[in-house]
Amino acid sequence: MDYDVIIIGGGPGGYIAAERLAHAGKKVCVAEQDTVGGTCLNVGCIPTKSLLNSAKLYRHALESEKFGVSVQGVSANWETMQAWKAQTVTTLVGGVLQLLKRGKVDVRNAHASLVGPGKVRVGDEELSCEHVIVATGSVPVMPPIPGAQDNPAVVDSTGLLEISELPKRLVIIGGGVIGVEFASIFGALGTEVHVIEMLPEIVPFMDDELGSLLRSAIPGVTFHLGCQVTEIKGSTVVFSDPEGKTNTLEADVVLMAVGRKPATEGWGANEAGLELDRRGVRVDDTMRTNLPNVWAVGDVTGRSLLAHAAYRMGEIAAAHIIDGAKAKADGQVLREECIPWAVYSLPEAAGVGLTEAQLADQGIEPVTVTVPLVLSGRFVAENGVKEPGAVKLIAEAKSRVIRGIHMVGNYAPETIWGAAATLEQELSIDDLRQVIFPHPTVSEGIREAAWAIAD
Amino acid sequence: MDYDVIIIGGGPGGYIAAERLAHAGKKVCVAEQDTVGGTCLNVGCIPTKSLLNSAKLYRHALESEKFGVSVQGVSANWETMQAWKAQTVTTLVGGVLQLLKRGKVDVRNAHASLVGPGKVRVGDEELSCEHVIVATGSVPVMPPIPGAQDNPAVVDSTGLLEISELPKRLVIIGGGVIGVEFASIFGALGTEVHVIEMLPEIVPFMDDELGSLLRSAIPGVTFHLGCQVTEIKGSTVVFSDPEGKTNTLEADVVLMAVGRKPATEGWGANEAGLELDRRGVRVDDTMRTNLPNVWAVGDVTGRSLLAHAAYRMGEIAAAHIIDGAKAKADGQVLREECIPWAVYSLPEAAGVGLTEAQLADQGIEPVTVTVPLVLSGRFVAENGVKEPGAVKLIAEAKSRVIRGIHMVGNYAPETIWGAAATLEQELSIDDLRQVIFPHPTVSEGIREAAWAIAD
Repeated sequence: MDYDVIIIGGGPGGYIAAERLAHAGKKVCVAEQDTVGGTCLNVGCIPTKSLLNSAKLYRHALESEKFGVSVQGVSANWETMQAWKAQTVTTLVGGVLQLLKRGKVDVRNAHASLVGPGKVRVGDEELSCEHVIVATGSVPVMPPIPGAQDNPAVVDSTGLLEISELPKRLVIIGGGVIGVEFASIFGALGTEVHVIEMLPEIVPFMDDELGSLLRSAIPGVTFHLGCQVTEIKGSTVVFSDPEGKTNTLEADVVLMAVGRKPATEGWGANEAGLELDRRGVRVDDTMRTNLPNVWAVGDVTGRSLLAHAAYRMGEIAAAHIIDGAKAKADGQVLREECIPWAVYSLPEAAGVGLTEAQLADQGIEPVTVTVPLVLSGRFVAENGVKEPGAVKLIAEAKSRVIRGIHMVGNYAPETIWGAAATLEQELSIDDLRQVIFPHPTVSEGIREAAWAIAD
Repeated sequence: MDYDVIIIGGGPGGYIAAERLAHAGKKVCVAEQDTVGGTCLNVGCIPTKSLLNSAKLYRHALESEKFGVSVQGVSANWETMQAWKAQTVTTLVGGVLQLLKRGKVDVRNAHASLVGPGKVRVGDEELSCEHVIVATGSVPVMPPIPGAQDNPAVVDSTGLLEISELPKRLVIIGGGVIGVEFASIFGALGTEVHVIEMLPEIVPFMDDELGSLLRSAIPGVTFHLGCQVTEIKGSTVVFSDPEGKTNTLEADVVLMAVGRKPATEGWGANEAGLELDRRGVRVDDTMRTNLPNVWAVGDVTGRSLLAHAAYRMGEIAAAHIIDGAKAKADGQVLREECIPWAVYSLPEAAGVGLTEAQLADQGIEPVTVTVPLVLSGRFVAENGVKEPGAVKLIAEAKSRVIRGIHMVGNYAPETIWGAAATLEQELSIDDLRQVIFPHPTVSEGIREAAWAIAD
């Protein structure tokens, strides 16, 4: 036996599983054909957060006169922003490698394929192991829009991160998290940005009421909802609006951000007999696939395409591999409704749990409340009273157990883990009312919501 | 009977109690001799947060070159900062008044005294009521240092908030929260700041290890620990250092920030027979005093001198007045160990629960871990790897129940309510490990700590 565990893919799901397993004394190999850290660290969450921070500082410099800070001659230097971003990514990739090295994990920079239970081809070698964890991630969806393929004006998110200068006009196809984050970054830096979204609202996992608020709160971006792109002619994007009228937009760059899909191809899933379902590799809530001792975690399962969900899935698989009985006793299962999400735009948004519509769809009567963040003293001190921001709380009317907390406003991503813990612990509105929030914080909006909801 | 409840003092404890009682249909009077909102809103948390935000924007403008934002000619306009601060306070005071008006609470702008159970003198009138809530707050301590009284160079925090121009040299006596926040604000704006603290470390409710980290992380401020001020001669502060040597510091302004004490005088406590203890008005954990139907909440109890603790105490008293049996069944008591605290400096700090030393003092074997925030991708993206920041987690070694979470780093105050909920729910390290934190956030430092602690 070459290894206790071989992990295909060194992104968040793969590297965390490797670290946890190594910590428990397992002999682990991670096969990664590209750079460890995966999409998130190399071309996703981390580089965008770095650029967003630069964009935020740029807006601050432009807009801080009323707060008593005067500046002359503000300019955005795209090249420096890119350099800081690159340095951040390099640092963090180094951190992941160090983490794996400390655990004596073999990191193999090679393509890997699942041959069958206990067998993985890594590069030219066939290696044996007790367990396999598949963590191959996801790839951007490229819809078959005429003129989109091989069009130098059209890029995916990875391509947009690498552009050499700020575009004057950016058209983004897709108003999900990726589309909205890039819209916000480039809009803040002065690019004219248009977002074309097929659905009636942006960011589908966000409660519609707050989705609409977020949309109106992002300055400098025009949203075209319920619109479908029919063709891209050179740098002209052609789309039909909800009335069926045809419109066009000129762009220097077109970002294709209609979504990502599990990377289920090219690594032997089919040949090995691994079952897929409509989301991705089929797993139960402990990350077991249909094959014995073959596990799948992260984007490839389609359960969630968020890095932190991949972390958790990696941990769950690792826990069951290390000690199945203990993992079962400890309740090591994925609770999808407790996975928070964040949109790193200006302003930010975050949430966890169901939307009002989703709770009603489950046949449960909801009780909800939406409170404006101007109830928070810190929010007013930092933004004034005209800045949009709100918290929506969604609970079961009968049991009063909280099922969703959604938020638009600065600091939301840093605050929302408490909401995830609240849902994880199945707290009721009345339990949450007893939690003491520090004053003055924007997080107090959640507390205000708990008190504002009907008794 | 004139009212169901008369509340002496319209600060955070008083106005929240009034709102909750009014919401339950009680006829309520709030007597406030000054402006509603209390110390926190008028001369404490809110104005300092407004100024801190300005100071932060000023530092951002000065330091964002490496993030790709170039500016020329940055200047801090103190007058504009003060104007924004004043506008913020006015807005929020208006909000509190509106809240009370909506609840049909009688707000009387008058001095009030407790006459006895069910009797309060408000201005010239003696009013009757079923319950009295005492919420008179606290006052700054003015230690008997020779030369401090009637010295125009010496101010308290209220005085410092009103100064007409930025001082060149500021000496702060006291390294608690108030001292540290003002040090950070003025230090960031270019004032030469010295903090003189008697104790061996700043911010006593913070774990020493992080206190030391915070101290080293605040730029532009010199801390003199273990030092005692012996005299103030004009604008010269004389103090002895731990070796007993005498030192002097010249200042334009001296801030006296050695602490605050419960305002137990001047409103009839003694005459009415209200018992005090060494902290303030003696209350049980439901806010009951020794007198029937007389309750005390907030700073005057000395249980905690934080606005959000006052909120909670106000709510607890209100819950017991509204329906004692239900409040008892719901566990409406003050859990002092679940009161979070925050230091709004640059960088920020926050925490909840015990320090390592406090847990050991309880005779419980602690298990602790301290992790640096450079483990957080967002922290690195926004600060680089040299910025100080850490999370310390303190748990019981045997039960693994978490008893303290302390943090230094940006966003700490917005993140810490989740830690308060964690302590409130008595989660163990292993429970916390199952909570999903959004990635990438600085809050993930807490998750990293939960995983880094010994198994």
